Amino acid sequence: MTFEQAPHKLLMIPGPIEVADDVLYENAHPAVAHVAPEFCQVYSEVLKNLRKVVYASDKVQPLAIAGSGTMGWDMTAVNALQPGEEVLVLETGYFSDGYADAMRAYGVKPTVLEAPAGQRPSLDQVKDALKQKKYRAVTITHVDTSTGVLTDVKAVAAAVREVSPETFIFVDSVCAVASEDLRFDDWGIDLVLTGSQKGLGCPPGLSIMLIGPRVIKAFEERKTPPATYYLNWKHWFPVMKAYEAASPAYFGTPPTNLIYALHRSLKTIVEGPVSLEERIKLTKQASDKVKNTLTEMGLQQLVDPELQKGNGAANGMTAVRYPNGLKAPDVLPKMAQRGIVLGAGIHKDCKDQYFRIGHMGVSVVDKSRDDVDKVLSNLKEVLSEATQK
Amino acid sequence: MTFEQAPHKLLMIPGPIEVADDVLYENAHPAVAHVAPEFCQVYSEVLKNLRKVVYASDKVQPLAIAGSGTMGWDMTAVNALQPGEEVLVLETGYFSDGYADAMRAYGVKPTVLEAPAGQRPSLDQVKDALKQKKYRAVTITHVDTSTGVLTDVKAVAAAVREVSPETFIFVDSVCAVASEDLRFDDWGIDLVLTGSQKGLGCPPGLSIMLIGPRVIKAFEERKTPPATYYLNWKHWFPVMKAYEAASPAYFGTPPTNLIYALHRSLKTIVEGPVSLEERIKLTKQASDKVKNTLTEMGLQQLVDPELQKGNGAANGMTAVRYPNGLKAPDVLPKMAQRGIVLGAGIHKDCKDQYFRIGHMGVSVVDKSRDDVDKVLSNLKEVLSEATQK
Repeated sequence: MTFEQAPHKLLMIPGPIEVADDVLYENAHPAVAHVAPEFCQVYSEVLKNLRKVVYASDKVQPLAIAGSGTMGWDMTAVNALQPGEEVLVLETGYFSDGYADAMRAYGVKPTVLEAPAGQRPSLDQVKDALKQKKYRAVTITHVDTSTGVLTDVKAVAAAVREVSPETFIFVDSVCAVASEDLRFDDWGIDLVLTGSQKGLGCPPGLSIMLIGPRVIKAFEERKTPPATYYLNWKHWFPVMKAYEAASPAYFGTPPTNLIYALHRSLKTIVEGPVSLEERIKLTKQASDKVKNTLTEMGLQQLVDPELQKGNGAANGMTAVRYPNGLKAPDVLPKMAQRGIVLGAGIHKDCKDQYFRIGHMGVSVVDKSRDDVDKVLSNLKEVLSEATQK
Repeated sequence: MTFEQAPHKLLMIPGPIEVADDVLYENAHPAVAHVAPEFCQVYSEVLKNLRKVVYASDKVQPLAIAGSGTMGWDMTAVNALQPGEEVLVLETGYFSDGYADAMRAYGVKPTVLEAPAGQRPSLDQVKDALKQKKYRAVTITHVDTSTGVLTDVKAVAAAVREVSPETFIFVDSVCAVASEDLRFDDWGIDLVLTGSQKGLGCPPGLSIMLIGPRVIKAFEERKTPPATYYLNWKHWFPVMKAYEAASPAYFGTPPTNLIYALHRSLKTIVEGPVSLEERIKLTKQASDKVKNTLTEMGLQQLVDPELQKGNGAANGMTAVRYPNGLKAPDVLPKMAQRGIVLGAGIHKDCKDQYFRIGHMGVSVVDKSRDDVDKVLSNLKEVLSEATQK
C-alpha cells in the first residue's frame, strides 16, 4: 500500500482529527458484501479490539454501527433505561447537557448536577446527590469537548459504587477513548459510548458502544420494549455476536468501509508499534507541552486553574481563552491561512471567549509528524501579530 | 486523481454495489472540519443534487446523515407520524414488512395489505383498502430488495390521490433511487427514503431522505414532540438548511468522508457524462439483458410472470429461482470462486429457493466495464457444471 492522502490543512480541532494514510486507504476499500466471509472476519476483529481499547472483559458487548457519537445518547436512553427512570447527569458543558436532553426525549428524568463552564461537580457533590435520591444511572462526560474538562471517571465510579452500588455508570467517552485512560472492568463501568473520529483516528460515521453485563441483564429483563427500531439492541446484539464469531448476519447494512477503516486504526492502537499505554502517555506529553507553552505565552485555559492542578483538564484537547481582548476572527482565520484548523468555542455561556486545540491520535503518536509544534509556533506568531495591531 | 481501487471480487448483489474509483478516492478524503467552508460547500451541493435525482422542487427538504436505509423507517415513523395513527403498508417482501415493524415500534398502527413472495397488492386492492378506512399514510417499497418486485409508484400515488387525497405517500426507494424512474413532485410523493450504497453508488453509511411540504407542515404542527433525539428532524432541519446555504451548523458530527463520496457520485449522476434519464434507460437495458438471458437459460424469476409483463420487476436487480433442484451451495460459492459475488435469497417463505443479482450503478452505466456479461457467462458455466454432476 503506497497511498498518500492529498495535501490539506492540518486539522487540529478536538475531532474530527487527522486520519493516517493507511486508515484512509481502508476507507477507500473496494465494495464488499456486508455478509462476505472476509468482511465478517474484519468486523470480528473490530469488535474484539474495541474491548481491548477500554480494557473490557468478554462479558461486555461491543457494538459499532452507522451513526454518530450523539446517537449513543439515544441508544443509552432507549435501551438501557426506561421512561420515568431517574438519572444523575454530571454537568461539564455542552455535551453533558446534550446527554441530558437525549434522556428527556425518551421520558427519562435527568437531574443535572450543575457546574459552571470550565468546572465539574465535585466528588462530594456527587455523593450527596446519590444519598438524597435513588438514581438508576449516573452519566459522566469523560472529556467534555466544549470545555476540555476531564472527569476522573475512576474516582466518580468508585464514589457511585460506594454510595449507591446498584446505580449504573454510563460514560460518554467520545472525546476520550484511546486518548485518556479508561478501564471498563477495573473501574466498574456499565456502559461506554464513543465515535470513530477522535482518539480512534477514523473518519466520522460510527456510533460505538460497549455495554456491560448489568445493563445487558436489565435490558433483557425489561417489561416494555424500547420505543425504537433502528436503535433497538434487540436487533443489533445478535448481529454483533454473529459478526464477532465471523459469521454473517443482517439488520441494516453496516457501513462497510468505515468498519475497514476502524479495523486498521484499532490494529495500530492495540498492536502498536506504539502500545495503548504508551499512546495515552504520548497524548499526555503532548498535552503538557501545549498547556505549558500556552501558559508561558500568558494564555489561560477555560478549565478552572484549581481543576487543572487536580488532573481535571483533558489530555487530548485544550480550550484556551483569547488574550487581550482578541476574538475568534483575530485568530482562527489567521491560523487557517497558515494551513492549520483550530476549533471555535461552543459553550453557551462563553463561546466567543475561547478556542479549542485538539491534540490526539496520529498527531501526537506518529513521531514523524510535528503537528503540535506547528500549532504552537504558528499560534505564537498569529497572536503576536494580532496583539501588535 | 489517479487512484485505482485494489483488485477485488466483482460485487453484483443488490447493494452494496461496486463503487467507482473516483468515489472511493473521495471516501479517502483527508480529514476536514465538519464546519469548514469547503465542506459546507460540498454538503450544499449534495443536498441540492439529491433533489435533482428524484425531480423534487425546492419545497422538498433533503437530508443526509450518518445511518442506514433502515434508519429512514424510524425517521418516518417518529417524525412524520404520531403514535396511534393508521398506516397502510403495501406488502412486497422482507423490506415492506420491516417498514411495518418500524411503525409498530413507535406506536403507529400499520395495516399490511398482504401479497405472497414475488407479488404485490393490486391497484384495486389499494383503492379498496383506502375506501374502507382512513389512513394517515401509505408506505410503498419501491423495489423490494428481497424479491425484486417493483411497485408502480406513479400509479399507486395516483390511486391514493384519487381515493384519499389527504393520505401521505411514503416511498422506501432504497433499492430504486437512481436506478428506477422516480418523480417526487409530478407523482405527488410526500417522502422518499434511501441509502447511499445502491443506485447512488457510494459505500454504505448514510440515511438519506427527501421530505415534502405536506409532511413538513404536519411535523411543524404536531402537538407532542417526537420521542427521539438523534432522529428528530427538529434538530436536523436547521442543520441541513444551513449546510445547503453553505454555512456551518452542528448537531452531531456528519460523516464527512461519506458526504464527499456522495458528492462525487451525485455529480456524476446529475451532470453526466451519462444523464439521469439515460442512466435509468441503461439500467433497464441491462435488466432486460439479464432477464432475457436467464429466460433463455430456462431459469425463472421470483417475480410472478404476470407481474413481469406489467413492468412489475425491478430494473436494478433480478431475483432468480434455482433450477433443477439446485441450491445456494451449488451456485453462490462457485460464482465467488470465479470472483463474482451474488446475493442469497432473504424472503422468509422461500429464501433457500432463489438468489439475487444486482445490476445497477457503475456496473451498468460505465461502458468500459462488462460486469453484466461476466455475471451471465459465468453463471451459465456454473449452472451447467452443477447440472451435469
